[in-house]
Amino acid sequence: MKLLSLDKVFDAQTVLKSIIRETKLVRAYGIAPDCELYLKPENLQITGSFKVRGSAYKIALLSEEEKKKGVIACSAGNHAQGVALAATKNGIKSLICLPDTAPISKVEATKGFGANVCLVEGCYDDAYKKALELKESEGYTFVHPFDDENVIAGQGTIALEILSDLDNIDAIVVPIGGGGLISGIAYTAKQIRPSVKVYGVQVSGAPSMYNSIHKGEIECLPSVSTIADGIAVKQPGENTYAIVKDYVDEIALVSDDEVSSAILALIEKQKMIAEGAGAAAVAAVMFNKFDTKGKRVVAVVSGGNIDVTSLSRVIDRGLRNSGRSTSLLIELIDKPGQLKDISRIIADCGGNVTGVHYEKGHTESVTGCFLRIEMETRDYNHVNLITQTLRDEGFKIV
Amino acid sequence: MKLLSLDKVFDAQTVLKSIIRETKLVRAYGIAPDCELYLKPENLQITGSFKVRGSAYKIALLSEEEKKKGVIACSAGNHAQGVALAATKNGIKSLICLPDTAPISKVEATKGFGANVCLVEGCYDDAYKKALELKESEGYTFVHPFDDENVIAGQGTIALEILSDLDNIDAIVVPIGGGGLISGIAYTAKQIRPSVKVYGVQVSGAPSMYNSIHKGEIECLPSVSTIADGIAVKQPGENTYAIVKDYVDEIALVSDDEVSSAILALIEKQKMIAEGAGAAAVAAVMFNKFDTKGKRVVAVVSGGNIDVTSLSRVIDRGLRNSGRSTSLLIELIDKPGQLKDISRIIADCGGNVTGVHYEKGHTESVTGCFLRIEMETRDYNHVNLITQTLRDEGFKIV
Repeated sequence: MKLLSLDKVFDAQTVLKSIIRETKLVRAYGIAPDCELYLKPENLQITGSFKVRGSAYKIALLSEEEKKKGVIACSAGNHAQGVALAATKNGIKSLICLPDTAPISKVEATKGFGANVCLVEGCYDDAYKKALELKESEGYTFVHPFDDENVIAGQGTIALEILSDLDNIDAIVVPIGGGGLISGIAYTAKQIRPSVKVYGVQVSGAPSMYNSIHKGEIECLPSVSTIADGIAVKQPGENTYAIVKDYVDEIALVSDDEVSSAILALIEKQKMIAEGAGAAAVAAVMFNKFDTKGKRVVAVVSGGNIDVTSLSRVIDRGLRNSGRSTSLLIELIDKPGQLKDISRIIADCGGNVTGVHYEKGHTESVTGCFLRIEMETRDYNHVNLITQTLRDEGFKIV
Repeated sequence: MKLLSLDKVFDAQTVLKSIIRETKLVRAYGIAPDCELYLKPENLQITGSFKVRGSAYKIALLSEEEKKKGVIACSAGNHAQGVALAATKNGIKSLICLPDTAPISKVEATKGFGANVCLVEGCYDDAYKKALELKESEGYTFVHPFDDENVIAGQGTIALEILSDLDNIDAIVVPIGGGGLISGIAYTAKQIRPSVKVYGVQVSGAPSMYNSIHKGEIECLPSVSTIADGIAVKQPGENTYAIVKDYVDEIALVSDDEVSSAILALIEKQKMIAEGAGAAAVAAVMFNKFDTKGKRVVAVVSGGNIDVTSLSRVIDRGLRNSGRSTSLLIELIDKPGQLKDISRIIADCGGNVTGVHYEKGHTESVTGCFLRIEMETRDYNHVNLITQTLRDEGFKIV
């Protein structure tokens, strides 16, 4: 990318000083015991994600003429809020095109940062088309979410902060969606300290950059599906693809389950909320996707804008995965006192019942039925204790 | 308290430098729009709570003789972890007495910070008795969780950090359990800047200091019950009671529901996990318990050690309270196609069904039954839209 330079990244740092928060590295204990892990908490950035850096720098460099006309963007997520706040802080108008299926909470948040919102019937692609139309007809400047040298330079300021905050870093691990964040970080870090490894992380449900780099050409995925909606991007940018090819050492994939575990670990160990994309780099370190053993590693937590409904699901899944909540299906014969006996056994074992349902089904006896018990447990050993005791007293667990 | 002095607090600050994190104030937007709210995020403190400050200072001042023998404490929570880490960092042994009903996760966390753990049969009071016995027989130094001048001086360092971090503060809002935290903060802040108001917050399920101050004498509650287990203390200390009486401007109570809302707001707006006690001060500001309108206010988020099961419950309750998840009970007549019709109506309205159960019950018709539908919704208007549409199509919602 010809127009990108280290000077530009330093310039971005100066320009952004009055707009963004300089997030301080946090030492993370107990998440990845094999390495010395630090987090770059961009989930604590203003707007809840790093995105505001790139947008704000892009907007600051617009001409007076362009500023007068305002900016336009298309996004239902972090980019929308970044552009909205960056425009407001620069005193200019912003219009965000969103598909009309976007969650109300995102629409409200975007408006809350001062943007005008244009709801477009259809999906993301329809909203994108509408944004380009309006750009042409109204003369707005389009702020691309990643494939733009000024946006990339803005994200590069993260590398400047990381390197000035901590010495002797071996590796920086970065989530990849369109590639703007990792392009800025890799380009900057490799020039200041070439020995630093820069690793990229995608989710297996949206491996567009991963596939493209391995193929040697840009690939467009037909569809993407992941809990990490912030990096669910079908196709890398031309510029970001080129920078990643030149500057990134390795890319790995993580599963949605690994991302969920990372979200839960960040909650329990760091008291910190990350969205799926934000936890992807941490997941890669937790599950040893790169050679990080014994190394000093910085994982970029890119954002924290997860809606509470998803968060609740992630926690529920995490509780089940770690034996802290359990659902048992017990086959009953049709005689009185069975619920009483089961309740007693569970209570004696220290389980905490949170739900009970009778269910019909193909039991051995015609008069039988199933009992579904939901309960809170301490861990897998506790679950085993309860199931074994129930079995010892003659109950059949399906 | 004769032995407490401002010099002591400054000394504590020096001693603690190498042990604790200096947590930086965070500007909180959107939680309490009527005032300029900052958070003192002691949930991000090492061990996940402010408690380590007091313990570490207390332990640092022990004689060589005392250090050789080690320290003992009784706690199932933040104090245990604080003492454990403080002892380990000072290179001395610690023994923590816990009731054997304490959650495994707390026991493991305490061990993880280097303490030996003594599980005592019975409840907290039994563990406390055991700790005092061991102190006598083994010569350990007992580290009181709050009623000790060195512990209080350690907590006072929070006020030093707040006042040097931000100018022109009108008020500091602090949760109260035994009173150690607010004693340190109020004593320190009032001497450095007497105009700063210091407000205390208790939960209505454990109003021991609140009652004692209003009565004019120390009261011991027969029992306490609250989601904020970190401040579920039956009786204030003699020293902390005296300091609160002299230095704290006002105490207010918040409900468990208000605390839950504050926990949820901290998650959504600040990407931050607080435990119940940690969110109590924020709850007081959110629900206007003090004269904070138009003021510059610091709320101390004292800790973040909430177990994920409780967190999941708080989120579920928060989702229901804000119309983002809903449970409908619909009376059915016994004819085919009813589930199909209901599913269609909900889908057309944009509701997302997450659970379906048939339930027997006293329906008007003998052959009728009830259908319980759990679903994710956007807000109350969305819930009303769905219920109204169901009613318009002839369904009876109970």
